[in-house]
Amino acid sequence: MKKITAFAPATVANVSCGFDILGFAIDQLGDRVTVALNDTQELKLADIQGDGGKLPFEAKKNTCSVAIRAMLDHLGSDQGMDIYLEKGLPLGSGMGSSAASAAAALVAANTLLGTPFSKEELVPFAMEAEKIACGAGHADNVAPSLMGGFVLIRDYNPLDLIKLPVPLGLHCTLLHPHLELNTADSRSVLKKQISLKDSTVQSGNIAGLIAGLFLQDFQLISRSLKDVIAEPSRALLIPGFYELRESIQSIGALGSGISGSGPTIFVLSPDKEIAIMAGKVSEQIFEKMGLDVDVYISEVNDKGAYVLE
Amino acid sequence: MKKITAFAPATVANVSCGFDILGFAIDQLGDRVTVALNDTQELKLADIQGDGGKLPFEAKKNTCSVAIRAMLDHLGSDQGMDIYLEKGLPLGSGMGSSAASAAAALVAANTLLGTPFSKEELVPFAMEAEKIACGAGHADNVAPSLMGGFVLIRDYNPLDLIKLPVPLGLHCTLLHPHLELNTADSRSVLKKQISLKDSTVQSGNIAGLIAGLFLQDFQLISRSLKDVIAEPSRALLIPGFYELRESIQSIGALGSGISGSGPTIFVLSPDKEIAIMAGKVSEQIFEKMGLDVDVYISEVNDKGAYVLE
Repeated sequence: MKKITAFAPATVANVSCGFDILGFAIDQLGDRVTVALNDTQELKLADIQGDGGKLPFEAKKNTCSVAIRAMLDHLGSDQGMDIYLEKGLPLGSGMGSSAASAAAALVAANTLLGTPFSKEELVPFAMEAEKIACGAGHADNVAPSLMGGFVLIRDYNPLDLIKLPVPLGLHCTLLHPHLELNTADSRSVLKKQISLKDSTVQSGNIAGLIAGLFLQDFQLISRSLKDVIAEPSRALLIPGFYELRESIQSIGALGSGISGSGPTIFVLSPDKEIAIMAGKVSEQIFEKMGLDVDVYISEVNDKGAYVLE
Repeated sequence: MKKITAFAPATVANVSCGFDILGFAIDQLGDRVTVALNDTQELKLADIQGDGGKLPFEAKKNTCSVAIRAMLDHLGSDQGMDIYLEKGLPLGSGMGSSAASAAAALVAANTLLGTPFSKEELVPFAMEAEKIACGAGHADNVAPSLMGGFVLIRDYNPLDLIKLPVPLGLHCTLLHPHLELNTADSRSVLKKQISLKDSTVQSGNIAGLIAGLFLQDFQLISRSLKDVIAEPSRALLIPGFYELRESIQSIGALGSGISGSGPTIFVLSPDKEIAIMAGKVSEQIFEKMGLDVDVYISEVNDKGAYVLE
């Protein structure tokens, strides 16, 4: 029976001043999902690899099947499918692991069905999976994982996604320190009320970042990569955060921030050499603290999820 | 003795979701200032027209002379000048009246001195004049009045100004209802603390507006022209505000907002015809309430202040 495999990339959400509204996609690192039609009316998790046994096989709880179910419901279809998930992403790392699984599953299933939806149109189905995985149907990981590049989520009612240009040469270093960080903690440390002044500063910086992406102005991007709202609270949960920032800026990186709700840290650089150096410098900082860290270096992926030949 | 006359345009600050960080310049409507060198070491207000006798002749209190003094101090110069101000803008209207006077004075004086400064470099001197006029050295009127177009004030420390593209065809209708609105009141109604949610919504909209300007996407601009921070409090001070919004949107205008701290309302439209219609529709609304209103229709001025031949 026909089957299709798709890949969907890791993503960085809460891009500094783009807290809750901006995400971007990474190259190479991500999840693979193979989907095959079956002759039942059920979605079945046939296999899950690379998750250390942590992900559910139950179709109502797995992000792959929940996303595909939302798509099938929209089509009024009761087609059954077998789903094979290969996790390339660590769970709970802040790199959009649940989003990548849902995105890959959707692209594979959508292709099997003759591509009734564009990748942008798949986003709401992936958001249904995020509700299961994260408790909230946010789009700032699933939209860039599907669509690639930087995606602005301007609004949710109705969903308004704007794909932004990726400046030539822009590279990302992802640093995943081996420490457990509870997403619920990470959200609970956020202040519910903020000052008008901080809100205005945040607006100025996100406006500057968007302009910097369009103008391909790395210095403007660098000046704008400041989060006065979420980061001051969340950075306290990540040892070495500010020391790392200082070090990567001194070697010419554009800036750093917490990826999603952490503990992964992203660093943006104007070229690959600086991105590699940023990785080395950061490894040393974490090593000094006795923390293991995984380092990934990649361009910003402008393509998003895709079918593997 | 040599003298030079410059024109500086009216400006709209607090552009909806661009509260405190975004302004743009209007065509035609504005102030003229003529400056002549004199052989004293003093700045002298030789004449003021069109202000109804309200503006000060004292050099330390007039925005023209305060701005020029800041520039001369920067140059270490004690050159004296005579200043002739022709107000084209009503005072206290929210159209950047004090900013236009300072900008025109600076461009004239700078040209007389052989143009030691670019228009962007003149902004800090004009901000000194805003301190006198408004109590705060903000840049969101003086920067667009000098530089033209849309100007993002990303930061003040140090000053970071980003000129944004003006979409082809974009027109502005300014509606100045004849009612007194105290700027101090207008600021005091603002909340000092806002919810994280509102701050995030505002960030999404300013990000969308900036992207819309770059993409020349009128619909995106329209969807983004929403201010959840200052407008809900300030609009209560302007009768007819929401009725007007509904009317102008129904005829295809992109959106509306309070210009500066009011009472002037700006309407953005995708072409001149709609801008004119928006003016007529608004006139009727204010007429019904027994309020006189001045209507100005103009393209967004991408040129800023300039020397008149």
